Amino acid sequence: MNGLGVVCVVGAGQIGTSIGMALKGSATAMADELLLWDVDQGRRARGLVRGGADRSLLDPEEVLAADVIVLAIPVSEVVGWLRTWGGQVSPDTLVVDTGSAKQAVVAAMRSHLGPGVHGIGGHPLCGNEGRGPEAGDPAMLKGAVFVLTPLADDPPTLERALALVGALGSQPVVLDAGRHDEILAVSSHLPHLVAAALVELVPEGGAERELWRRLLGPGFRSATRLAASDPEMVASFLAANSGPLRHALGEFEHGLREFEAEVTSPSSLASRLERAANRRADLVGDC
Amino acid sequence: MNGLGVVCVVGAGQIGTSIGMALKGSATAMADELLLWDVDQGRRARGLVRGGADRSLLDPEEVLAADVIVLAIPVSEVVGWLRTWGGQVSPDTLVVDTGSAKQAVVAAMRSHLGPGVHGIGGHPLCGNEGRGPEAGDPAMLKGAVFVLTPLADDPPTLERALALVGALGSQPVVLDAGRHDEILAVSSHLPHLVAAALVELVPEGGAERELWRRLLGPGFRSATRLAASDPEMVASFLAANSGPLRHALGEFEHGLREFEAEVTSPSSLASRLERAANRRADLVGDC
Repeated sequence: MNGLGVVCVVGAGQIGTSIGMALKGSATAMADELLLWDVDQGRRARGLVRGGADRSLLDPEEVLAADVIVLAIPVSEVVGWLRTWGGQVSPDTLVVDTGSAKQAVVAAMRSHLGPGVHGIGGHPLCGNEGRGPEAGDPAMLKGAVFVLTPLADDPPTLERALALVGALGSQPVVLDAGRHDEILAVSSHLPHLVAAALVELVPEGGAERELWRRLLGPGFRSATRLAASDPEMVASFLAANSGPLRHALGEFEHGLREFEAEVTSPSSLASRLERAANRRADLVGDC
Repeated sequence: MNGLGVVCVVGAGQIGTSIGMALKGSATAMADELLLWDVDQGRRARGLVRGGADRSLLDPEEVLAADVIVLAIPVSEVVGWLRTWGGQVSPDTLVVDTGSAKQAVVAAMRSHLGPGVHGIGGHPLCGNEGRGPEAGDPAMLKGAVFVLTPLADDPPTLERALALVGALGSQPVVLDAGRHDEILAVSSHLPHLVAAALVELVPEGGAERELWRRLLGPGFRSATRLAASDPEMVASFLAANSGPLRHALGEFEHGLREFEAEVTSPSSLASRLERAANRRADLVGDC
């Protein structure tokens, strides 16, 4: 076994394809063989063409022969896969996913993976509004943070997951699944909801459609970019993280009401906006 | 008089400087002379260096000698300028502003400009989170929509304003001030508030600051980009457009509550997110 052994990516979407391409392109050739499974036959074929695997599988059971199984499918499908196949995964297999909500995945791994299987939650913080294998790009994993959420204090599993993350060129952050979900509710899940809710305020069709189109500038475009994401993927992680998301939403609505109360006092509003601008610059820089 | 005559830009911020640079760089040399005034002496000097004018003025009264006065200052300062100087503007002078809220400006023009003065509201839909003359760039006006909100049915004023917009390389859209403000409340003003409220959800400082920094990805960055804008400018147009902004905020909160109710039904949530994604693509394209 050459580092990772035989790796099987389940899901030929943007992230699964990017992971396959990154492993194939890795100078250290960490994977002995790279397999691809996707329940959608067309997407599976397109993923293979895109270069995300050595060969695609004909049967979902063949996934179980891999040394490393990467579940790059929406969170609800990760949970479904674990329910269906988890009991048949061989001991010593590393099972990791890429979903944006981790408590549900970690709980399903605990319930469904047999003893000796090395399960760990994973979440690469990359990807954009592109969809499908054609949107895959190994460069998006390079230098990206890849969160790992262990099921328990389990150094051998973590070590193998770190080798996978390293082979992708990503930066590991090891974190409790619950803490991950609380932070992601604020940093990603709520912003997805907010972007969609902003888009919905624009009247649909009608005589003024052309006028609105002309008046929607770059600010609206960036504020709503997340609303262009794959709806099934987003719905899946929002639903899987509904508790922390509702908490974040409550705090957000509270903040909006405070802003609303201040909206006719430009000087206190300006101070508050300046604090937000400075905090943002401190967090994400000037861009 | 060569087209526009003597043009004076009031305000050496990003937009005022961009307008000056665009007029100076215009192949048709529409302005006989280009003057610059800014109440901040340092910014005035930097605007001149940046190339936004032929000369800067030493006294605010000298602005009144221009044939065209472009008020490129925050909305509250536009209203203040009109209150102070409006009665002394010579007949036939074109007075236009660049603020993001137009009802307040149009009302102040009606109240303070003397008879025969050609006042009209203006709003170029460009600019970004850059600030000051150094962030000025005439390219941002090229092809940008420049809304004009007339005070009355007044073809001579409109014709001169259209000549100015044409000299900047921008695309004019003539619109009622109230309608402009209703649309901008949704397309720009609410998104500014929302971006700041999202930033405020990130805990300030503390032991976890580094963790948050690592977990804030490109989605959070684009969703909050508007929060990096000039706070005084933003506070000024939010306050000037508080009525339509509050209305938009009410509708937005209603939409959020509907989303919240659906958050545990992934399939209806996915349908709703898909409609939003399609509507956004129809409005602003794929980017």
